[in-house]
Amino acid sequence: MTYTAQMLDTYPADINLEHDQLSHVIDALSSCAQACTACADACLSEPADQLPMLARCIRDNLDCADICTAAASVLSRHTGYDARLTKAQVEAAIQATKTCGDSCAEHSASHEHCRVCAQSCRETEQALKDLLPKLTPSGKGAEQPHQAAPQQRI
Amino acid sequence: MTYTAQMLDTYPADINLEHDQLSHVIDALSSCAQACTACADACLSEPADQLPMLARCIRDNLDCADICTAAASVLSRHTGYDARLTKAQVEAAIQATKTCGDSCAEHSASHEHCRVCAQSCRETEQALKDLLPKLTPSGKGAEQPHQAAPQQRI
Amino acid sequence: MTYTAQMLDTYPADINLEHDQLSHVIDALSSCAQACTACADACLSEPADQLPMLARCIRDNLDCADICTAAASVLSRHTGYDARLTKAQVEAAIQATKTCGDSCAEHSASHEHCRVCAQSCRETEQALKDLLPKLTPSGKGAEQPHQAAPQQRI
Amino acid sequence: MTYTAQMLDTYPADINLEHDQLSHVIDALSSCAQACTACADACLSEPADQLPMLARCIRDNLDCADICTAAASVLSRHTGYDARLTKAQVEAAIQATKTCGDSCAEHSASHEHCRVCAQSCRETEQALKDLLPKLTPSGKGAEQPHQAAPQQRI
Repeated sequence: MTYTAQMLDTYPADINLEHDQLSHVIDALSSCAQACTACADACLSEPADQLPMLARCIRDNLDCADICTAAASVLSRHTGYDARLTKAQVEAAIQATKTCGDSCAEHSASHEHCRVCAQSCRETEQALKDLLPKLTPSGKGAEQPHQAAPQQRI
Repeated sequence: MTYTAQMLDTYPADINLEHDQLSHVIDALSSCAQACTACADACLSEPADQLPMLARCIRDNLDCADICTAAASVLSRHTGYDARLTKAQVEAAIQATKTCGDSCAEHSASHEHCRVCAQSCRETEQALKDLLPKLTPSGKGAEQPHQAAPQQRI
Repeated sequence: MTYTAQMLDTYPADINLEHDQLSHVIDALSSCAQACTACADACLSEPADQLPMLARCIRDNLDCADICTAAASVLSRHTGYDARLTKAQVEAAIQATKTCGDSCAEHSASHEHCRVCAQSCRETEQALKDLLPKLTPSGKGAEQPHQAAPQQRI
Repeated sequence: MTYTAQMLDTYPADINLEHDQLSHVIDALSSCAQACTACADACLSEPADQLPMLARCIRDNLDCADICTAAASVLSRHTGYDARLTKAQVEAAIQATKTCGDSCAEHSASHEHCRVCAQSCRETEQALKDLLPKLTPSGKGAEQPHQAAPQQRI
C-alpha cells in the first residue's frame, strides 16, 4: 500500500485530474522504476555467457528507471501546473517504458526477471497513454497553460 | 501492488536477506519518497500566511525524497553487495525519515498532508531500523564485506 | 572541471555525436539541475511576504532539476543507443528549462538567485536545442533506431 | 563552468560553511555522479570476455551515482539546515566513493574509463572527508541541530 491516493486527497487546492487514475499512474511509475533498477542488477548476476546479450537491456533498464522516477515526481506536483511540461515528461516515459518493455520482452523466455519487468513496463506504458489526453491546461487562463493552475498571487 | 517481491524472487543468485522484509523496506522507501515529494508541493499551495512556517518542512521533504530514492535503489541491487555501503545509505535514510517525520509531525494538526507524510516517514524509519542489524557481510569472504556477495569471476 | 569529456573519450565504442558538443550539453544539464535545486531552496529562505509569489517558481525549479538530471544520465549512456528515447527526454528537458527559465526570469529583478538560475536554464535550453537535430539513428541498421547502436551479439 | 558558486553567493541568508569549499564539494559530487553513470555504461560496451569481471564495478558505479546525486542535492540546500542529516548523507557518499573508487581502481590498467572514474571518486572522497568535520550545528539554538539554521518564524 502506498500513500499516493491519500496525498492527492489531502492536497489543499483543486487537482484537475481524477485522483484514482493519477494515483494509479504515479504508483505504476514508481513500481516500474524499481523493477527496472532490479532488472538491470539481476542481468548483471546472470552467467557470463548471457551478459553480452543483456548489455542493451541493462542500458534500457537504467534509462527507464531514471525517466520514470522523474515522471512520478512531476506528476506528484500540482502547484503551478504546466500542462506542456507534464506532457513532455509523460511522453518521454511512454517512450522509455516502450523501449525497455521491448528489450525485456526479448529475454522473457530465458530470464524471469525480464518477464516481470516487461510486464511492469507494459502496464505503466498503458497507464501513461490513458493519462496523456487528459493532461490539458485547466482553470482560469487555460489558454496560457503555465498560468492555468492553482498558484498564489498576493 | 508493486513488482518488488517478484523481482526479488526472480533474482538469479542468492540474496542474503528475507525477501518479505526487504521487499517491505523497498516499497516503504519508494512510497515515502512519493509522499515527501507530494507533501513539499502541497505545502507550496497552502495559504500565504502558512508558507513561511512550512519552509523548513518543505526542505526536509525534499531531502527525504532524494535520500529515500537513493536508498531504495541501493537496496534493489544485490550484485557485488557491499554491506558497508548499504548500511551507510540506510543510516542516512533513517536520519532523513526521522528529521522529516519530526518536521511534518509539527504540522499534522493543521495540515492533513503533513499528517499522512509523517505517518509514511515513521513507518519507513521503523522498517529501516528493523533491517539495519541484518545488513551484514555474507557468503564466502564475509570478513571482506566487499567481496562477500554474488559476483562473477572468469 | 568535470570528467565528462574524458569519459566520452575513453568510451570503448563509437559515439555518433561530436564529443565537445555532447560534453557541453551534459555539463550544462548537471549544472542546471544544481542551480534549480539551489534556487528552490533560496526561494524558501526569502522573506515571508515574498514566498507566496515564489511558489510556482519553486515548483518549476524542482521539475527542472529532476528532468535535467534524468536527461544528463540518458545522454551519458551510449550502449544500445535508441534515438527515440534520447530525443523524448531531450525534448522534455527543453520544455523544463523553458518553463523554469521563464519562471525565474519573472523574478530576476528582485532575486539574484533567480537571475543566475534563469541564465543557467536559458543556456541549457539552447544547448539542448542545438543537439536535438543531431540525435538520429546511427550505424548499421539505422532504419531501426533501437538496433543502430554499439551493442554486442554473441 | 558551473553556477554552484554563484548560487551560494546569492543565497538570501547566511551559510555556515566556506562557499569555496562547499562549491568545490558539490561540483565534485555532480561530476562524480556523471563519471560513474558513464563508467557503468562504458563497462557494458566492453568486449564479451571482459563483462563478467566488470559486473561488480557496474553495480558500484550505479550506487555511487545515486548516492552522490542525493548528496549534491542535500548540500545545495541551506534552509532549515540539519547537521545530522547532512552528515549522514555525506558519510554515505564517502563510503560510496571509496567502494566505487576501489572497484574502478582494480580495472584502471585495462580500462581507461575506470581509471578516469576512479580518479573522480578519489577526488570526491577527499573533498567530502575535508568537509565532514565542518558540518556542525550553527547559529542560534545550535545545541538543537535541527533548529539551528536559517528558517522563518512568523
